[in-house]
Amino acid sequence: MSVPVRERLGEADPILESLQAALLAGDSERAKEFAARLVEEDALLLLEDLQESELSRLFDILGDESLGELLTVLHERDAADVLERMSAAQAADILEELDPDDATDIINEVDREFSDTILVAMEPEEAAELRELMAFPADSAGGIMTPAFVAISPGLRADQAVAALRRVAEEAETVYYVYVLDPEERLLGVLSLHRLVLTRPETLVSELMYRDPITVRANEDQEAAARIIVERNLLALPVVDDDGRLVGIITADDIHDVLQMEATEDIERLGGSAPLDEPYLRASPFLLFRKRIVWLLVLFMAQFVTLAVYDHYEVLLRQEVLLALFVPILIGTGGNVGSQTVTTVIRAMALGEAGPKHFFRIIRKEFVTACGLGLVMGSLMFLRGTFQGGREIGLTVGLTVLVLTIWAALVGAMLPLALSKLRVDPAVVSAPFISSFVDATGLVVYFSLAQLILHVAV
Amino acid sequence: MSVPVRERLGEADPILESLQAALLAGDSERAKEFAARLVEEDALLLLEDLQESELSRLFDILGDESLGELLTVLHERDAADVLERMSAAQAADILEELDPDDATDIINEVDREFSDTILVAMEPEEAAELRELMAFPADSAGGIMTPAFVAISPGLRADQAVAALRRVAEEAETVYYVYVLDPEERLLGVLSLHRLVLTRPETLVSELMYRDPITVRANEDQEAAARIIVERNLLALPVVDDDGRLVGIITADDIHDVLQMEATEDIERLGGSAPLDEPYLRASPFLLFRKRIVWLLVLFMAQFVTLAVYDHYEVLLRQEVLLALFVPILIGTGGNVGSQTVTTVIRAMALGEAGPKHFFRIIRKEFVTACGLGLVMGSLMFLRGTFQGGREIGLTVGLTVLVLTIWAALVGAMLPLALSKLRVDPAVVSAPFISSFVDATGLVVYFSLAQLILHVAV
Repeated sequence: MSVPVRERLGEADPILESLQAALLAGDSERAKEFAARLVEEDALLLLEDLQESELSRLFDILGDESLGELLTVLHERDAADVLERMSAAQAADILEELDPDDATDIINEVDREFSDTILVAMEPEEAAELRELMAFPADSAGGIMTPAFVAISPGLRADQAVAALRRVAEEAETVYYVYVLDPEERLLGVLSLHRLVLTRPETLVSELMYRDPITVRANEDQEAAARIIVERNLLALPVVDDDGRLVGIITADDIHDVLQMEATEDIERLGGSAPLDEPYLRASPFLLFRKRIVWLLVLFMAQFVTLAVYDHYEVLLRQEVLLALFVPILIGTGGNVGSQTVTTVIRAMALGEAGPKHFFRIIRKEFVTACGLGLVMGSLMFLRGTFQGGREIGLTVGLTVLVLTIWAALVGAMLPLALSKLRVDPAVVSAPFISSFVDATGLVVYFSLAQLILHVAV
Repeated sequence: MSVPVRERLGEADPILESLQAALLAGDSERAKEFAARLVEEDALLLLEDLQESELSRLFDILGDESLGELLTVLHERDAADVLERMSAAQAADILEELDPDDATDIINEVDREFSDTILVAMEPEEAAELRELMAFPADSAGGIMTPAFVAISPGLRADQAVAALRRVAEEAETVYYVYVLDPEERLLGVLSLHRLVLTRPETLVSELMYRDPITVRANEDQEAAARIIVERNLLALPVVDDDGRLVGIITADDIHDVLQMEATEDIERLGGSAPLDEPYLRASPFLLFRKRIVWLLVLFMAQFVTLAVYDHYEVLLRQEVLLALFVPILIGTGGNVGSQTVTTVIRAMALGEAGPKHFFRIIRKEFVTACGLGLVMGSLMFLRGTFQGGREIGLTVGLTVLVLTIWAALVGAMLPLALSKLRVDPAVVSAPFISSFVDATGLVVYFSLAQLILHVAV
């Protein structure tokens, strides 16, 4: 069987090569062993270019379980691409092997018509489970939970509970926590497996369980769920419906992706574009264009204001052309300080460390910092300006840098805090946004100071 | 007992209030219950201002275990502050209750002399464990691992292993994975607890275990360990020394902080300052100043180049003062596009999605995107320029925006990739850095085009 092992900058991956050799030899055991060790990139190298017939042979050698594991290593869109090159029966076999939440992520990306066919080909019970999960928005707690939890009733003894667990353990994603439900499936308590196993056998579950565990509702945002898991250091968080019935659990490993994605969104917004919602390499130029053009246009309009302000002072400029030379360095420095401040403040807000209630504390801190920065930068600018055009020019540009540094820091800190107070996501205030904002006001400061110091009338 | 419940913007936390009431009533049970539910902010409100005598009473009511749990909710520096207001004996009692990795994080922040006293006051065995952990750099895998794992030998039967576990389970942080060691403590395999519990009692551990598990070395970077846990969806990762001996494990919940910190560092660097390495609210203005001034000065020097370039074209400017008006909007747009590109590319690199080996693919993608953006922005700029100063000015500024957009996108994508190829951390290329870089070259483009189109000689 020909599975292409492409080279990555000259160095082929040894595991991928060994897998290739095992596949050629038809050695199913070794092939499975190496397949389990592939990281995303190599799994993609292996799978992305395979023809239908090759995929079908791979399925025969690796089996549904091992091939399924390989798919979960991939980005769900890539995994869906692979499934679409398989028969519905094989795709169904594979999805049945996966944890329902992983299977849902993948089938959500499969072409609608084919996904219906796959669901029909699956065991009715497992298909029903997937259909339920598919009903939740992808970015809700319900969208990342798995229904494969283990539930027991409070009246069991510890040894009976362990025996019950033995029967269901195969299907459950995690049996590290065991959930205790009443007859209406409402969550009564939670119990760690080791507590259950390591206690006296005759103890009642109701005595062992931890009551009123922290839960999250299925329709809440996945980020809220992630934040609870991080703050409480949980390994799993139960998800309940509006009636308090347990419908699934979110495990700690599921939220790594949520946290990463959240940070990625913040970074992309801070850089001045809309979040891509896609791995970068997968994003088409058209997608990049769409995500970037909106903010570019908004900022462009803001810069038209700067242009108008500048235009207003044209007479001043004609008398002192020298003033124009300093414009880029002045507004540039303002922009840099604004960018430093806004990124720090927005990140602190995203981490929940700072918020509108710390308004004055933050403003005071930024003010003091900016005074220090402004004095250093302003002194340097004074020297440079004096060298270029004499004492008065030096004074003008030096003072402008001092004022702009403080102004940029205050705007960079206040704007996200104010927006958050107004319940607007503060991450819309990007670094370029603050820069553009500071540009126009900076010119007003600059030319006003110039008029004052140089005694030029407009 | 007077525990101040301060109000947060008018809304006092109900849990904190209930805790306060329970403390006043001396109701130890209820106090423990509410203490377990406090989030970081409220725990800090409760603890940060307590006097030594108040802390000592809190210790009496809550006990070492409950107070210890409360400390782990805090940032380690805050927890250390609390410990420093307690007696060495009480501090030692509390640290003994904590997982060793959490205890290490805290004691590392305690004043050196006092931390020695605390270690002396602790049980010798637990103190020795902490001393070992304290020897690892805080940002290494050894620095975040816990030595509280569960190990068994391969020759045991499943039921013997469970019996052995029952004896040690109290001390272990996680018994979800059980590690199988040879007599020299080298790692042979790993076994999940549920596998052990839910199999036939007489099965040998060596038959059940998964051989050659993924490990990380103690001196490797904590980010490398975090990345493995994320990529492989592990709940725990074994840490080995240079001889392959198991020395600890890193659990999934330990790496949330690592991932968050990593993203925070990237965001702060992208914004143009050095990473704070501290929660923002805790950072003093002096620290903020130090972290920001270096890059501000570097960028300032870069802008001196812009100034020199501008100066070079002063003659041209004297003939066409109008040209100066467009400088902020032109270099601003270049900076915005550069910022969008560099943040996206650097984030993709940080996530391991893109790297130098994708150089041409990324450059092609950015080039096509930038052509689209440049055409839109350039056309708008052409109209605005024509309106301001006629067709030739319009053509000059429109073409400049087109060229600058493409140039900024290429620089924003190429520079981090090139640095990474040279093994320099690409995150030093901040958004302000790219903007400053584009400023100087942008002016050259602008004035060259102006000379050509306006037929002005310098």
